[in-house]
Amino acid sequence: MMIIMRSDATPEQIEVVNKEIISMGLTAHLSEGVERTVIGVVGVGKPIHHNTFLRLPGIDRILPISRPYKLSSREFIPEDSVFPLDGFNIGGKGIVIIAGPCSVESRTQLLDTAFAVREAGAHALRGGAYKPRTSPYSFQGMKVEGLEILAEARQLTGMPVVTEVMAPDMVELVSQYADVLQIGARNMQNYDLLHEAGKSDLPILLKRGLSATVEELLMAAEHIISQGNKRVMLCERGIRTFETATRNTTDINAIPVLKHLTHLPVVLDPSHSTGHWSYVTAVARAGIAAGADGLIIEVHPKPSEALSDGGQSLRPARFAELTTQIEIIAQAIGRSVIQLPEVGQH
Amino acid sequence: MMIIMRSDATPEQIEVVNKEIISMGLTAHLSEGVERTVIGVVGVGKPIHHNTFLRLPGIDRILPISRPYKLSSREFIPEDSVFPLDGFNIGGKGIVIIAGPCSVESRTQLLDTAFAVREAGAHALRGGAYKPRTSPYSFQGMKVEGLEILAEARQLTGMPVVTEVMAPDMVELVSQYADVLQIGARNMQNYDLLHEAGKSDLPILLKRGLSATVEELLMAAEHIISQGNKRVMLCERGIRTFETATRNTTDINAIPVLKHLTHLPVVLDPSHSTGHWSYVTAVARAGIAAGADGLIIEVHPKPSEALSDGGQSLRPARFAELTTQIEIIAQAIGRSVIQLPEVGQH
Amino acid sequence: MMIIMRSDATPEQIEVVNKEIISMGLTAHLSEGVERTVIGVVGVGKPIHHNTFLRLPGIDRILPISRPYKLSSREFIPEDSVFPLDGFNIGGKGIVIIAGPCSVESRTQLLDTAFAVREAGAHALRGGAYKPRTSPYSFQGMKVEGLEILAEARQLTGMPVVTEVMAPDMVELVSQYADVLQIGARNMQNYDLLHEAGKSDLPILLKRGLSATVEELLMAAEHIISQGNKRVMLCERGIRTFETATRNTTDINAIPVLKHLTHLPVVLDPSHSTGHWSYVTAVARAGIAAGADGLIIEVHPKPSEALSDGGQSLRPARFAELTTQIEIIAQAIGRSVIQLPEVGQH
Amino acid sequence: MMIIMRSDATPEQIEVVNKEIISMGLTAHLSEGVERTVIGVVGVGKPIHHNTFLRLPGIDRILPISRPYKLSSREFIPEDSVFPLDGFNIGGKGIVIIAGPCSVESRTQLLDTAFAVREAGAHALRGGAYKPRTSPYSFQGMKVEGLEILAEARQLTGMPVVTEVMAPDMVELVSQYADVLQIGARNMQNYDLLHEAGKSDLPILLKRGLSATVEELLMAAEHIISQGNKRVMLCERGIRTFETATRNTTDINAIPVLKHLTHLPVVLDPSHSTGHWSYVTAVARAGIAAGADGLIIEVHPKPSEALSDGGQSLRPARFAELTTQIEIIAQAIGRSVIQLPEVGQH
Repeated sequence: MMIIMRSDATPEQIEVVNKEIISMGLTAHLSEGVERTVIGVVGVGKPIHHNTFLRLPGIDRILPISRPYKLSSREFIPEDSVFPLDGFNIGGKGIVIIAGPCSVESRTQLLDTAFAVREAGAHALRGGAYKPRTSPYSFQGMKVEGLEILAEARQLTGMPVVTEVMAPDMVELVSQYADVLQIGARNMQNYDLLHEAGKSDLPILLKRGLSATVEELLMAAEHIISQGNKRVMLCERGIRTFETATRNTTDINAIPVLKHLTHLPVVLDPSHSTGHWSYVTAVARAGIAAGADGLIIEVHPKPSEALSDGGQSLRPARFAELTTQIEIIAQAIGRSVIQLPEVGQH
Repeated sequence: MMIIMRSDATPEQIEVVNKEIISMGLTAHLSEGVERTVIGVVGVGKPIHHNTFLRLPGIDRILPISRPYKLSSREFIPEDSVFPLDGFNIGGKGIVIIAGPCSVESRTQLLDTAFAVREAGAHALRGGAYKPRTSPYSFQGMKVEGLEILAEARQLTGMPVVTEVMAPDMVELVSQYADVLQIGARNMQNYDLLHEAGKSDLPILLKRGLSATVEELLMAAEHIISQGNKRVMLCERGIRTFETATRNTTDINAIPVLKHLTHLPVVLDPSHSTGHWSYVTAVARAGIAAGADGLIIEVHPKPSEALSDGGQSLRPARFAELTTQIEIIAQAIGRSVIQLPEVGQH
Repeated sequence: MMIIMRSDATPEQIEVVNKEIISMGLTAHLSEGVERTVIGVVGVGKPIHHNTFLRLPGIDRILPISRPYKLSSREFIPEDSVFPLDGFNIGGKGIVIIAGPCSVESRTQLLDTAFAVREAGAHALRGGAYKPRTSPYSFQGMKVEGLEILAEARQLTGMPVVTEVMAPDMVELVSQYADVLQIGARNMQNYDLLHEAGKSDLPILLKRGLSATVEELLMAAEHIISQGNKRVMLCERGIRTFETATRNTTDINAIPVLKHLTHLPVVLDPSHSTGHWSYVTAVARAGIAAGADGLIIEVHPKPSEALSDGGQSLRPARFAELTTQIEIIAQAIGRSVIQLPEVGQH
Repeated sequence: MMIIMRSDATPEQIEVVNKEIISMGLTAHLSEGVERTVIGVVGVGKPIHHNTFLRLPGIDRILPISRPYKLSSREFIPEDSVFPLDGFNIGGKGIVIIAGPCSVESRTQLLDTAFAVREAGAHALRGGAYKPRTSPYSFQGMKVEGLEILAEARQLTGMPVVTEVMAPDMVELVSQYADVLQIGARNMQNYDLLHEAGKSDLPILLKRGLSATVEELLMAAEHIISQGNKRVMLCERGIRTFETATRNTTDINAIPVLKHLTHLPVVLDPSHSTGHWSYVTAVARAGIAAGADGLIIEVHPKPSEALSDGGQSLRPARFAELTTQIEIIAQAIGRSVIQLPEVGQH
């Protein structure tokens, strides 16, 4: 059972509820978010009586636990979550396209790519300044210098910036430059990082772990939301299976499944989910046809010279073709790609 | 190396090639198809000289072995294979929709469904008379009686019939009633069955095994084609992964990958690949958006009463909505759903 | 619910039960085995009353359906199944070792290997005459000639022969030469083949499919046993996972799980489950330590010249070391490797 | 190519090497460990000449890159790594047994378990004070209070303590109480945490990620070792596959594979790799038979009352039986369980 305290509940009221739970031989798990406190009540082999609590002050509502995730479930919020990002909305009828290189490699590379993807219809810019790399001997990203280049691109193009944060103590720094914090697949169950992201006031792009179930992805979102940050986008980026023809297996089923289970926006990353640029367009189209709310795509002006993930990056011209196709697919299912004001007017 | 004999090569010419191979210390593997003989040449640690063979009579061409499958590869035939089925083409610009119940359960059930799916735009009728079932105590299909009902439905609706054959010695019987022979996922590596199908003159719908790689699927097709039957459709029907939110994981990547590697038509079975009717429409759309040449979908007039797979079957009304959406998606990528002549005129 | 008819039940008695089931609005699934008939009773949304049946003649007992497999479950037969094979028992305290080459390649190769593995302690000889191969252009086995060589090896060494049968219509032929029929991983759900094996009077070595769950393996065994043949050995041979460091992933958990769920003997094939000879010894030891009733191991006198699976075959000398280690591990858990009479006296 | 600097190389010498690399148009990746600096040299499409570097001062040796992990590979260090832990060695002939509850739940629970596992032969005590939990509403561990209880148990029983650290900024705190830092499966690719662990002077128990390949596990170890901490134990704890009969699939193959590829000690956690107490003993035996250097096992005095993982915890009496069996298996392969001095004399 979940006790959702009112946002104006006092510490004393919370303590009264807590004591009541303990006095009944149950266990209370407090999640103190920025906005409100949620109290999970667990009892081993004992019945839990809702009515006992309903009379206590400061309680907003009480939810039975039918799924293990609560705040991210459609049971809790039936309507799609929509949140604004820099002049447009994420999660409504409109489809958002985020594009850019895997890594920030130089000022020139990033700015060239940024202008090219904006021209081709992207709404936001992606680019990694801190890169989680399997090998300690690989390029680890330009770090703060990369963040500064991203900020400059933001200023010059008007596009909000999505970039990854890899450690709890980096959330504050990265937030000074980013508009959306990305949590990567390898960190999907890095709970300290999730909690720190949950205290942020930036939207979070949460990527599904390589072998995480849909339910585990929602539980990871719950870790964030239970800390008070409700603006979480979920990202399908391929799962690990026996198939080696592609880098990962795009779990296209996950898109309608997530749309059924949660009110959070769902985006697809066809670059990572296929691992090869020649399959990105087909799978990007599939994602929109399946109901995704957006795409995040790797674009590089010279893929063969990229320091990471060149093989899965589209050239700008091909990316432009893709956005045109996406527009038509979107309309086929009663949606449309977000229209931004003219570039010069931003 | 593959030596493709001419279709008019004589047994003597084949024998000459065979002896030449042996005399060079190499091993010959003859695949005697109905149309022509293909000779695989294998040498352990020895160089194979093409020129030695090119002078021999009866040889069409010699292919180097860059991929393990030959006759099914785009290296061998760069253009899409297109083959006619009862008044329309499979594998061209047009998208084919095959629909019907998982199993033939009764004359009424099948005929009702057949008329309903034809009405809603299906081009061919699916229905199992022989059912491979995990449990020996489950319904195993109506067998010959089921085949007879399918044949009746064919006569009444004009739709060609796709039905599964489970054993080599059943190919002949099933062929008397069917227009397309389906080889199920569990039999994808039942080589005696593949060889028998390879001697048939009916098109084959070959379903990908639950944990077969794309390459293994193409190798299975190769077993069929090397026997002379070139009319093979490949069917993605979901693979087995760790994810349990859906019955299988639709490998949407496999669609562009297959279209890249092979000239054979590729269809998607979203009913099995998701396992739940509420996800079928989204994933069917995704399949077409990703480039599939067709769909095979389970439809049942009363899903809750189905003897098998009721949970993943669409009602006819919902199937009709799906075909409408598919038409729009198809057009978005420059294709269209096959248009049949008016029903009454068939 | 399962109605187990007595072995002397008459066709009339079976018919009476059948009619009673139908009259109650339920569905009967008859599995007519050689020894007795088992009737599965299925009712959709209707209660099934045991008592109604208990009064009918010819019924041995009625089992509630708690697991989907019945005859192979420990619920049905709590004690370990033990069956004799040519002078020794499979499935008791003793551990059986089956060894030989992947394929019969020549008379010399097989006889050399057969004598070597007998010398090193093997109890039975394995060797494939019919080979299921991914590629139609690979060596497909020596077929009948291979069976004849196996039979000769049997006569000369006294070891019973385990060999694969790939198609239902081959069961009779292969049975003329073999002592144990092997059903390969790719055919684990080839139901016609399982049914034919179920009518055989030879023991069956049933290999787990590459991506079959433990439950599906038991369901496949159920298909055999429900036809009357109770002598089924289950073989763990590795499953397909994301890991590519080894050919397959040995599911060592499956050994205690199977021993818990079924009374059937369980053997491990570490050659296929690892795919590399250098890991075979360690994993073979692990299998015995985990409770397996036996091993089936590929041994080849000259692995580098093998026509199939050379890389996973042990040389005879290394196999001899392995059998010594197995003996010690077996004793550590209160078991022992089967002791045969002196070779000359067989 | 890897340039291993001598441990007494000066910053100036490192800089000379660095400049030389850059002047050749190559890229240098410095990993500055506590003990020495390792420089990875990467060149895109350019040849790298070893000789150019060999003449420079301060270089210990230069390694060609045949595997992506370097410092953890047997190519680099052919002999088994052995490191002392509180009076005994990890990684030699002796087999180490680590046991204790999943979580520290109370002083009484932990001390009772600690004395019981010491009595039954354990060499080290495990117990989680910080628990990574899928749900934010589950018990998250006793945190600092748990660490204090562990330290008390250490003092009373003389057993070194293994406990998990979940975030980089917690390494220092946890190190004040622990003898071995555990990095959990979900954090195997939390690189900031790995780097912090690499700067610690405590041994690290690194658990394999749920879907990490063996190579990725070794790359994670490389992240630690490249920071200077060479005392890393690798832990197989089951991987995620399609099989649901057990919580995870023990990858028993990984044990001989790891022993082949790396000099680091390898331990098995059969509690997590099976997820059910009744399979722990069989799989623990299998691990030792396969060549593991140790075991880490969950033991709880009252499993049914455990706040986490009760179902996979052994009771102390069953754990005592297991250690006896392990001793015999160890001897069968020429090893033995570590013998500690009498308890009272510690």
